[in-house]
Amino acid sequence: MKRFGPFTLRLCRTETATLRHVSSTAVPRRAQIAGTGLIGGSIGKALRARGWFVTGRDVADANQSMALELGAIDRVGVDPDAEITFVAVPAGHLGAEVARSLADGSGVVTDTGSVKSRVAAEINDPRYVPGHPMAGSEQDGVAGADAEMFVGAVWALTPTEETDDGALHHLQAVLAALGADVVTMTPERHDGLVAVVSHVPHLTAASLMCLADDRAEADAPLLRLAAGGFRDMTRVAAGHPGIWLDICDENRAAIVSVIDELVERLSDVRTVVASGDRQKLSDVLVKARRARTNLPSKYVRPYDLIEVRVPIPDRKGQIAAITMLAADCDVNVTDIEVAHSTEGERGVLVLLVALSDGDRLVAALESKGYHPTTRKLA
Amino acid sequence: MKRFGPFTLRLCRTETATLRHVSSTAVPRRAQIAGTGLIGGSIGKALRARGWFVTGRDVADANQSMALELGAIDRVGVDPDAEITFVAVPAGHLGAEVARSLADGSGVVTDTGSVKSRVAAEINDPRYVPGHPMAGSEQDGVAGADAEMFVGAVWALTPTEETDDGALHHLQAVLAALGADVVTMTPERHDGLVAVVSHVPHLTAASLMCLADDRAEADAPLLRLAAGGFRDMTRVAAGHPGIWLDICDENRAAIVSVIDELVERLSDVRTVVASGDRQKLSDVLVKARRARTNLPSKYVRPYDLIEVRVPIPDRKGQIAAITMLAADCDVNVTDIEVAHSTEGERGVLVLLVALSDGDRLVAALESKGYHPTTRKLA
Repeated sequence: MKRFGPFTLRLCRTETATLRHVSSTAVPRRAQIAGTGLIGGSIGKALRARGWFVTGRDVADANQSMALELGAIDRVGVDPDAEITFVAVPAGHLGAEVARSLADGSGVVTDTGSVKSRVAAEINDPRYVPGHPMAGSEQDGVAGADAEMFVGAVWALTPTEETDDGALHHLQAVLAALGADVVTMTPERHDGLVAVVSHVPHLTAASLMCLADDRAEADAPLLRLAAGGFRDMTRVAAGHPGIWLDICDENRAAIVSVIDELVERLSDVRTVVASGDRQKLSDVLVKARRARTNLPSKYVRPYDLIEVRVPIPDRKGQIAAITMLAADCDVNVTDIEVAHSTEGERGVLVLLVALSDGDRLVAALESKGYHPTTRKLA
Repeated sequence: MKRFGPFTLRLCRTETATLRHVSSTAVPRRAQIAGTGLIGGSIGKALRARGWFVTGRDVADANQSMALELGAIDRVGVDPDAEITFVAVPAGHLGAEVARSLADGSGVVTDTGSVKSRVAAEINDPRYVPGHPMAGSEQDGVAGADAEMFVGAVWALTPTEETDDGALHHLQAVLAALGADVVTMTPERHDGLVAVVSHVPHLTAASLMCLADDRAEADAPLLRLAAGGFRDMTRVAAGHPGIWLDICDENRAAIVSVIDELVERLSDVRTVVASGDRQKLSDVLVKARRARTNLPSKYVRPYDLIEVRVPIPDRKGQIAAITMLAADCDVNVTDIEVAHSTEGERGVLVLLVALSDGDRLVAALESKGYHPTTRKLA
């Protein structure tokens, strides 16, 4: 990052301290969206909900019209005076759209691509701040756009050496105002991290699913033996393959390196199992268990939430009964999941609730014959 | 399997046709449980609920007393006249307990170990039917025992060449009466299948979690980027390591062979990614997607259930609101899960409901402003 005098000064005017002033005047702040799909549309809605005037465009006429109709943008077109342009187009068009947006206007330009090194290397401009909102939805397109999509979501910003500090800070403040949890790192580091937590896990799930599927063809009962754990592990493999082709293309080096590391670790585990070394196997499993148990849950401020685990019999209506019981005693459920046991399908309903609500919920559950346990988040 | 004349005749007396008769007389059928933990206790409760008289023992006095107190058994001790003995002790003691049970009595003996080849090879007796109920719970011990644990659960029986057909059919009928979905296969085939759907996935989740954890030590923000997909994939790694040491020990050969195959597949994917071969990568992802989408869900009779998917905004009370809405319009939710998107934590609540309830639930959801989609199970 480098400082870029006059530009920084201009941007500083719009930083947090002056936000209130700006938003209370009759002149709204202006943003621009290139690519009014799910993410672009959500950014538009989130900004409009906070008083911004948003101009948007999409290569597909139908998309930009629908964005207008659904209130994701104020008008279709180009805004050279936009304070920030968000480029939210598919990977293959990112570089060109970012370059065009920089050429067209004078504001900060950011993008939403899920791999950062390549586009960051392509564009050398102090006003460009590569970004990656870690948010999404099953629904494609602007129909799924939501003004609250980024509340609590991690939004990675990956400034390059060229990126101006002022541009970065400006964008950070705006994203924080949308509720995002902004994390700043280099593009290379970002790509290495997402290879570990997203790209290679996805490819592993796909490999495991293909392996099981091939075996199931030869041995029909196989998938009948597949219980909750297997379903959890392969769930992501049900996703649309489309975006993964671009991701694997763009993040090739990091993905290959992480696959190599995973293969090495699996080979180590193979050696440990083959040699019957219980101590070494135990070391791996204990370490994995501790790490998984401490994995941060979404939005978790560990000091104010508690996990309530309720073993649920496989009887009709149990999940509704438990969530209704929580609602009846005015306990809000922040997150819910069914943790399946390793074998079979019987589950434990895991509810994440406010620490102050934990005792009340436990008492209510016990009064109905459930056997909840609780776990404070570390 | 071989036929074993007189023995078969004796057993045939108790088969399905006579069940009603037997249970309506004053003389209950008798079973025995060796090891009154979670599984043994659940078998005891399930049998007692169906009118059996159950004798149980456990090496730990406290366990057998508690089993008696909680109604999992009728009395503590040994019953040489038990029609069936269920050996539900830890892996290390299985062989000895099965042998003892065969020596002590004249009935069928089965066990509940999760790996079958070794114990099946150890015991050569026509009255021994190796078994593996694919059921469990997060709770350890008889306190978690439940008479309904096996309803809808797969229960594998793995007769050896020595196993008498009559003994097998006898046990099959009893397990079916407990609600289990009985699957019969050889011990070797069973062990190969569970290596694919359970053991290697578990070791893979642990390896992935350790890899991420080691990287996170060097690079603190890593786990903040871990979204729902990563959490799903590593969830099983949070389980107790204890039983896995025995499983890996006993199922060594099958596990090693499946790890080898997974490593080979990951290496293939690595080559495809490294060479930028989009077509081959697409083949893998499309195949995985199709297989995962068709993965049978629990108890699913695909023709009578439908999946209703409801994108949920991350706002308070959404899960309770949706399950309450389902309850209000008298729709029973058979299964529920939050399918996280690949990135971020926003989810889709996936409800499995009766086909005949689908339209009613969708209409109710739409009237409240949700945008549900439905998917028939293949």
